Amino acid sequence: MDILNKQVLLASWARGLPQASDFRFAEQVLSPCKQGHVIIKNHYLSVDPAQKGWMSKAQNYSNAALGEPMKALAVGEVIESSLPEYKAGDFVSGWFGWQQYAHVDADAIDRKINPATGPIQNAIGLLGIVGLTAYIALKDVINPRPGQTILVSTAAGGVGSIVGQLAKRWGCRVIGITGSDEKLGRCLNEFGYNAAFNYKKEGWQEALKAACPEGIDGYFDMAGGWISDGVVELLNARSVHVQVGTAAVASWDPTPQAPRRERLLLVKEITHQGFVIFNHASRFDEASRYLAQCLANKELVFREQVLDGLESAPQALESLYQGKNNGKILIRLT
Amino acid sequence: MDILNKQVLLASWARGLPQASDFRFAEQVLSPCKQGHVIIKNHYLSVDPAQKGWMSKAQNYSNAALGEPMKALAVGEVIESSLPEYKAGDFVSGWFGWQQYAHVDADAIDRKINPATGPIQNAIGLLGIVGLTAYIALKDVINPRPGQTILVSTAAGGVGSIVGQLAKRWGCRVIGITGSDEKLGRCLNEFGYNAAFNYKKEGWQEALKAACPEGIDGYFDMAGGWISDGVVELLNARSVHVQVGTAAVASWDPTPQAPRRERLLLVKEITHQGFVIFNHASRFDEASRYLAQCLANKELVFREQVLDGLESAPQALESLYQGKNNGKILIRLT
Repeated sequence: MDILNKQVLLASWARGLPQASDFRFAEQVLSPCKQGHVIIKNHYLSVDPAQKGWMSKAQNYSNAALGEPMKALAVGEVIESSLPEYKAGDFVSGWFGWQQYAHVDADAIDRKINPATGPIQNAIGLLGIVGLTAYIALKDVINPRPGQTILVSTAAGGVGSIVGQLAKRWGCRVIGITGSDEKLGRCLNEFGYNAAFNYKKEGWQEALKAACPEGIDGYFDMAGGWISDGVVELLNARSVHVQVGTAAVASWDPTPQAPRRERLLLVKEITHQGFVIFNHASRFDEASRYLAQCLANKELVFREQVLDGLESAPQALESLYQGKNNGKILIRLT
Repeated sequence: MDILNKQVLLASWARGLPQASDFRFAEQVLSPCKQGHVIIKNHYLSVDPAQKGWMSKAQNYSNAALGEPMKALAVGEVIESSLPEYKAGDFVSGWFGWQQYAHVDADAIDRKINPATGPIQNAIGLLGIVGLTAYIALKDVINPRPGQTILVSTAAGGVGSIVGQLAKRWGCRVIGITGSDEKLGRCLNEFGYNAAFNYKKEGWQEALKAACPEGIDGYFDMAGGWISDGVVELLNARSVHVQVGTAAVASWDPTPQAPRRERLLLVKEITHQGFVIFNHASRFDEASRYLAQCLANKELVFREQVLDGLESAPQALESLYQGKNNGKILIRLT
């Protein structure tokens, strides 16, 4: 019997923020498993801020393709395999795209998952790029020391909420920037931030400044844009600003203007560094072990927002960029 | 007999580029040597691009003071000392200012100089902050590897000419940006650049791009501003942009606008880092030894432009910012 594979295709490159209308739905008969391939039935699809970049025509570290299922991480079950290392019934995570079934080669698979150790969706959540990004960019790039002040933008999001908790565990004073009073409450009450500020409230920059009398030693920045322009002057001499996302900038075409920063970098010897998790595979083991341990000990709060059905994916990405999400967004298919 | 000390005082904070009119001349009777002090007769005064920052009212890493002799490095001879470690006849370099005589405590003295090992002015030239900056920012921040392409702005200047030669010695392909055809010729013929471009010539950016088919791995940048805006897109993934100066930006008040850069930094994991030589004192020994060895072996070309008389200092600084200098500028007083 033919299996119909429902897919969410990228219909047009993103112009500015992702829109649900940038995608279209399709159905395709699943082709038989080719040599060197496996067929995976997706259980959970990931919705990530990084997808905006992947669906942009501009130069990027990783691009989706027009007319193909939207590039996405997912977790699922192998239903057919021509590879000796995978067999039907194995759970795996990897680049399986926004679709019900993925017909992929070994390169698309990140790793096998043992469902006995916890919910399989952790593999694309806390134990996936969300947690890995938080741990590695914070530890390796900022390298926070006890007593330092760490600032986090998009502080209540999937990555931000973990960064805040890790920095706190490692002895830092942690300040968050977020986009609603509800998220601000979660920063303070769930994620342990010492202080947090809603950038939609007038006077937030002055309030943030007052909360950082000794300046900022590390800035974990997923916002960029005008939100960061307002706080970079608080960065201390020899501080580190790691750029993990640019959610506050709607469009890069044409390149927007910004206050010129090189003098501030120079006189304070600030390091401003980009971060792309996929360049740091050699650090995944340490990070995964640490995060899994925290998870097992219930030492980290991780919010997931689970939406049902493939059909909800495009709108979920659109609303992520409107700041409407409540933690890490997952699409449940089964 | 009273000694008259001629001085160049900072008369007004710099607005934009330094002007000779920002200074005024004064004469003062030299006071007797105080306890804990020495009196130094300056032989050579330094004129440095960094002085623009020091004479700016804005936040900086180091400021001059209004109505005081302009902050400057110098080399001179101790003529009177109340400190056991210095005696009359010793040559020393340090923060002696634009004046004939300096009455300073031990903190102002950087080091003693042995005139038998070479011209004393080397202490504020190749073996001073010029050479130290070139060596340490290139080696420690960019860390160039053989076969890489290194770009240098203000390529024919005191620091730039040394960076170019060091990068070449260390196996790199070296590209320079400079401001006249005469300097461009020196880049190619004296300093060993593989290619160089005059930013005053139309089409220089396209020509530079064509000369870097494999992109740029390290950018030693003393220009910043529009000159750098035009080349940062050539930076390779995981490259390093070290900001050592911002000569191409006339004024930082108000903060000028620039193309927003954080997306480029992010997707390519570029590191953009400021550099202030005075934070790297622990590295001076290694750098000095290396440079002194090169100097002894005549392996580095170092251009000095020596101007006579204290009166020439203000105009020399003004013309430095007009790109009219011919290597490192020194003022000879004796």
